Amino acid sequence: MKARVLTLFLVCFFTFSNAQSDETVLKIVYDTSLKNGKSYKWLDYLSNKIGGRLSGSTNAELAVQYTKAELEKLGLDKVWLQPVMVPKWVRGEKEMAYFITSGELYKVNICALGGSVATQGGGVKAKVLEVDSYKDLKALGEEKIKGKIVFINKALQPELINTFQAYGGCSSERYNGAAEAAKYGAVGTIIRSLSSRQDDYPHTGAMGYGETPVEQRIPSAAISTNDAVKLSESLKKDKNLEFHFEMSCQQFDDVLSYNVIGEITGSEFPNEYIIVGGHLDSWDLGDGAHDDGAGVVQSMDVLRLLKESGITPKRSIRVVLFMNEENGLRGGRKYAEIAKEKNEKHVFALESDSGGFTPRGFSFDCSDLQFAKIESWKPLFKPYLIHYFEKGGSGADIGPLKDGDILLAGLRPDSQRYFDHHHAANDTFEHVNKRELELGAATMTSLVFLVDKYGTETITMTQKIKD
Amino acid sequence: MKARVLTLFLVCFFTFSNAQSDETVLKIVYDTSLKNGKSYKWLDYLSNKIGGRLSGSTNAELAVQYTKAELEKLGLDKVWLQPVMVPKWVRGEKEMAYFITSGELYKVNICALGGSVATQGGGVKAKVLEVDSYKDLKALGEEKIKGKIVFINKALQPELINTFQAYGGCSSERYNGAAEAAKYGAVGTIIRSLSSRQDDYPHTGAMGYGETPVEQRIPSAAISTNDAVKLSESLKKDKNLEFHFEMSCQQFDDVLSYNVIGEITGSEFPNEYIIVGGHLDSWDLGDGAHDDGAGVVQSMDVLRLLKESGITPKRSIRVVLFMNEENGLRGGRKYAEIAKEKNEKHVFALESDSGGFTPRGFSFDCSDLQFAKIESWKPLFKPYLIHYFEKGGSGADIGPLKDGDILLAGLRPDSQRYFDHHHAANDTFEHVNKRELELGAATMTSLVFLVDKYGTETITMTQKIKD
Repeated sequence: MKARVLTLFLVCFFTFSNAQSDETVLKIVYDTSLKNGKSYKWLDYLSNKIGGRLSGSTNAELAVQYTKAELEKLGLDKVWLQPVMVPKWVRGEKEMAYFITSGELYKVNICALGGSVATQGGGVKAKVLEVDSYKDLKALGEEKIKGKIVFINKALQPELINTFQAYGGCSSERYNGAAEAAKYGAVGTIIRSLSSRQDDYPHTGAMGYGETPVEQRIPSAAISTNDAVKLSESLKKDKNLEFHFEMSCQQFDDVLSYNVIGEITGSEFPNEYIIVGGHLDSWDLGDGAHDDGAGVVQSMDVLRLLKESGITPKRSIRVVLFMNEENGLRGGRKYAEIAKEKNEKHVFALESDSGGFTPRGFSFDCSDLQFAKIESWKPLFKPYLIHYFEKGGSGADIGPLKDGDILLAGLRPDSQRYFDHHHAANDTFEHVNKRELELGAATMTSLVFLVDKYGTETITMTQKIKD
Repeated sequence: MKARVLTLFLVCFFTFSNAQSDETVLKIVYDTSLKNGKSYKWLDYLSNKIGGRLSGSTNAELAVQYTKAELEKLGLDKVWLQPVMVPKWVRGEKEMAYFITSGELYKVNICALGGSVATQGGGVKAKVLEVDSYKDLKALGEEKIKGKIVFINKALQPELINTFQAYGGCSSERYNGAAEAAKYGAVGTIIRSLSSRQDDYPHTGAMGYGETPVEQRIPSAAISTNDAVKLSESLKKDKNLEFHFEMSCQQFDDVLSYNVIGEITGSEFPNEYIIVGGHLDSWDLGDGAHDDGAGVVQSMDVLRLLKESGITPKRSIRVVLFMNEENGLRGGRKYAEIAKEKNEKHVFALESDSGGFTPRGFSFDCSDLQFAKIESWKPLFKPYLIHYFEKGGSGADIGPLKDGDILLAGLRPDSQRYFDHHHAANDTFEHVNKRELELGAATMTSLVFLVDKYGTETITMTQKIKD
């Protein structure tokens, strides 16, 4: 008799659950996140108790342990660590730089770019050649470059509404500048920080030496936007001014680290996987709250919000906290490699790695038919002011999963402030707003719920019929 | 011959100008604002060189002089001051408050609400009665209230996506709390700050005594959200705890102040007016950067951006910097009164008074047919991520202009952070992002351009035909 009552109750419950409209489910998800979210509390810990989490650092390992422990508290079906070897680069002592013109010394704010070699001996001291882009170096040639510091002073285009587009227009300067300048005998490169703002913060980020032989590698630093302007103005008056900088950064052998993974096993299709993720590593100057602490805690909260909202996913939902997005992408590559080895069918991957600002929508890497299906869900998001649904990139960490019909997406928060903080000492917890962060977590959860409910199968089938 | 060439040039120029698509004009406006905006520089001065601009204060008068002088530099057709008498309330010494429970003293952060009377003698010290709303007071009655401090502890509802809606659900507590509590013999009121966030900032704002006789008026203060929680928790343990607070605020006689007005006279319909505005006064705790320095400088920049973008408006475009929105609305009322006296035909009024955050769109107070027309412009705004076009309120200062066919609108920036700063000491320049502010100015300019170009006449005519 007891069993019968229970069965009846369960049937009623599930009937009731299934009868809930999508509108109602989304309302529950958003309400739960805004009234009872955990993302902000987790971010506080990651940012303020741990701090910057550069790959291979003690902090990165503390973050692995912390997030694993927190996921274990959520009552998921599985939580595990996925080993991955990561590069270990350390900044060493704080960098120092100045220039001298007309007998006056100006201290400027620089930081080593991630992966740069140190300056040797007492630092690099040389005349400066200013260019707008490393692409100008070839025409200038060795005669004008040899023995000098190349100063690449390319500013982000302010008129671009999407600041990621402005960033994209300059990021190869930071990445390739030193390798290109070394070809013509430069002794160092100074790159204008990839910031949307005029201020005193230098912004680090990855650079690479490509094919440059080890002995020809030159140190490369970012300079704050204010100091880039000051240096440029001074160069206009005094072409022979001398710039001096010192950096003690160092590259070590790869070390063992981990992706952190948690899973709610699917009730109907346990062998189909939907993943949500962000990257656990960050640069070392700030505490990595926006990049990408926000994405980490939002992704963790997606699984919690599904459970709290009474949603039983049909497919297996995984949160993946990737290690080493910033200077290697080893975690993203390892996850995809293992998924392929195990022949795991991934149907959808969603990444949050654009800051914890007010969510505006998503960009998708998918077929036109998949996109049409997703667009039909737009009205469900309107009450939450989520309006941006566009085809475009998804995220670096989930990129290696791209294969066949997988649907890839990236959360797109408001981008105006992101590059004020990105990779700089002011990427800190106080610049993340609790409500904005929680709205992002709810928006991600809502999309995961819809994709899980309606599947990508039907999309693919329709497509196949058409094909 | 020279004259002919000039004529030909002018004809070509105007043909070219008129031939520019709306898309092109909006692109020029946004580009100009983002590459060469002035709003941020003006806001820096208003916030950092002048500061909080409470009506009747020296700072408010400095702001009048400064903005008038800056408008005069823009080469407008007219700039003038419109006299208006405004209330003068001053905070006096910084407020002080604490409560004692179990022999321990807790200092708490409070501030006088605007318009409150001071505490007499050595301050108010009394037991505390906590309620969720002043509406609960009637049922409690004089017996439970007399001689006590009424503590209204109503929090903003976190699940409301539009924080203005959450604010609206609590603002009458702040405004009416003291007058209602005084009816039942309370000796003071303490109102939980109308903030979206848990922190230590008390948020001021207007309150009124209604019909309460002068001798029965009781002091009213806001308490920070953190301290509201602390007080409430302490009251649960100790109903008899005593709360003490001191305030020395004072109301003076009205003083003379001004609305600041600038005008580009219309080329075709000079007697039809379009106005853009914000309010020049602010509360005194912060520097009023978001409320409403942002709206002031954006409105000023609308006229500058029209000129810089080569737009010759058909109608007269006025910027109106209203005085005394915060505690009297005298400026808004005066402007409407004079406009009516002069029989000036106002066709459109646009206000920015919701902070300098990323613009999302507008809300409109208009007819359905006007709204349909406006909605047809939505695609023009899509590249700028401006998506929110809804019927609803416009702005307090332009409200008194409501009459007949006038179209009223309010800029709607992202609202998530607004009430973290609103009326508090942290409403400061550093919390305004340059790009976000400039996007707002461009968005306002674009709407003004479109309404001027396409008019409200046709809308009205269509409506009349239908009617």
